[in-house]
Amino acid sequence: MKISARNVVEGTVEGVEEGAVMANVKIKIESPDVITAIITKESIKDLDIKVGDTVKAIIKSTEVMIAKE
Amino acid sequence: MKISARNVVEGTVEGVEEGAVMANVKIKIESPDVITAIITKESIKDLDIKVGDTVKAIIKSTEVMIAKE
Amino acid sequence: MKISARNVVEGTVEGVEEGAVMANVKIKIESPDVITAIITKESIKDLDIKVGDTVKAIIKSTEVMIAKE
Amino acid sequence: MKISARNVVEGTVEGVEEGAVMANVKIKIESPDVITAIITKESIKDLDIKVGDTVKAIIKSTEVMIAKE
Amino acid sequence: MKISARNVVEGTVEGVEEGAVMANVKIKIESPDVITAIITKESIKDLDIKVGDTVKAIIKSTEVMIAKE
Amino acid sequence: MKISARNVVEGTVEGVEEGAVMANVKIKIESPDVITAIITKESIKDLDIKVGDTVKAIIKSTEVMIAKE
Repeated sequence: MKISARNVVEGTVEGVEEGAVMANVKIKIESPDVITAIITKESIKDLDIKVGDTVKAIIKSTEVMIAKE
Repeated sequence: MKISARNVVEGTVEGVEEGAVMANVKIKIESPDVITAIITKESIKDLDIKVGDTVKAIIKSTEVMIAKE
Repeated sequence: MKISARNVVEGTVEGVEEGAVMANVKIKIESPDVITAIITKESIKDLDIKVGDTVKAIIKSTEVMIAKE
Repeated sequence: MKISARNVVEGTVEGVEEGAVMANVKIKIESPDVITAIITKESIKDLDIKVGDTVKAIIKSTEVMIAKE
Repeated sequence: MKISARNVVEGTVEGVEEGAVMANVKIKIESPDVITAIITKESIKDLDIKVGDTVKAIIKSTEVMIAKE
Repeated sequence: MKISARNVVEGTVEGVEEGAVMANVKIKIESPDVITAIITKESIKDLDIKVGDTVKAIIKSTEVMIAKE
């Protein structure tokens, strides 16, 4: 299956912090970069996301901003 | 200035393709990864974004999804 | 591959209108509903999206709003 | 009032799960489809959203991705 | 009709610039502030948005970031 | 540093309500308008956001919808 989202980066889950509804997942993409994803706690369970998993972070290109000095 | 967006990645602009209203910017973060950002043509002009510029890609963590095999 | 996005709806492409950078894709999910997706022209080419294709519309749950009379 | 969001789907609330700040709302659009919306708990109160309500799910078209086998 | 989006600001359209698929709309909320909205050209036609119209800019609170010096 | 996000509005924090993962921040932009931002609790700590702070609300223009009577 291919997805229209232009940004797909593989990494390893290094932290999952759950709230009542949402969860904060830290994905290490390569030292020292870490991507933060806020997803539902429901997805955490459905995909069984846990520390050490290899996952893909997916970001639609319309969501990316650019900053310049 | 600090921003609440959790994902800020530095890279180099390697392509800018402009339409009438929007523009597609390719940011090389490190070989071979490239981030795609769709921003307004207006921002391209305002920030004077061109190939070779060092920029930061900024992504709010609520916009990041996760996929797992 | 499973994705954290909670909303995945299968449908048929019934229209693709391309601009220079973005494209407007109409996906018929079931008569008479049609979902509109604005994605990059680049994705249209990469996934070879054309009228009649069976595709999935994917929407992260944090992007859904609710209105009530 | 008309809204620029291209995707407006009517359905029935079949579940509301509240956290401290956010809430997960399940909207049945037609058997067997359910749309998941993550909205503020504040909106749940302001709109008085409860199971059995007829509501509209609203999604801006730039937030819709497409996947294809 | 009430919407779950927490940010609804009334203003006046002071500019509409159309591309093939998307359009850039400038909404004056009060001197000297202007909000920029990128919406489909299709919505411009459907809502008949033109300079001088009184409109509401609507923003889901999960899309708002915060910066601090 | 300049950012591609077209909407940057200065205001004063008048409320911070924290959940386990997310936080709801109220930013008074000028009487009587208040902007609601849902950001991570992590950002609240990292930027040390508290009532009375002068902050900027930042919104990418692709996230702004328009409604018209």
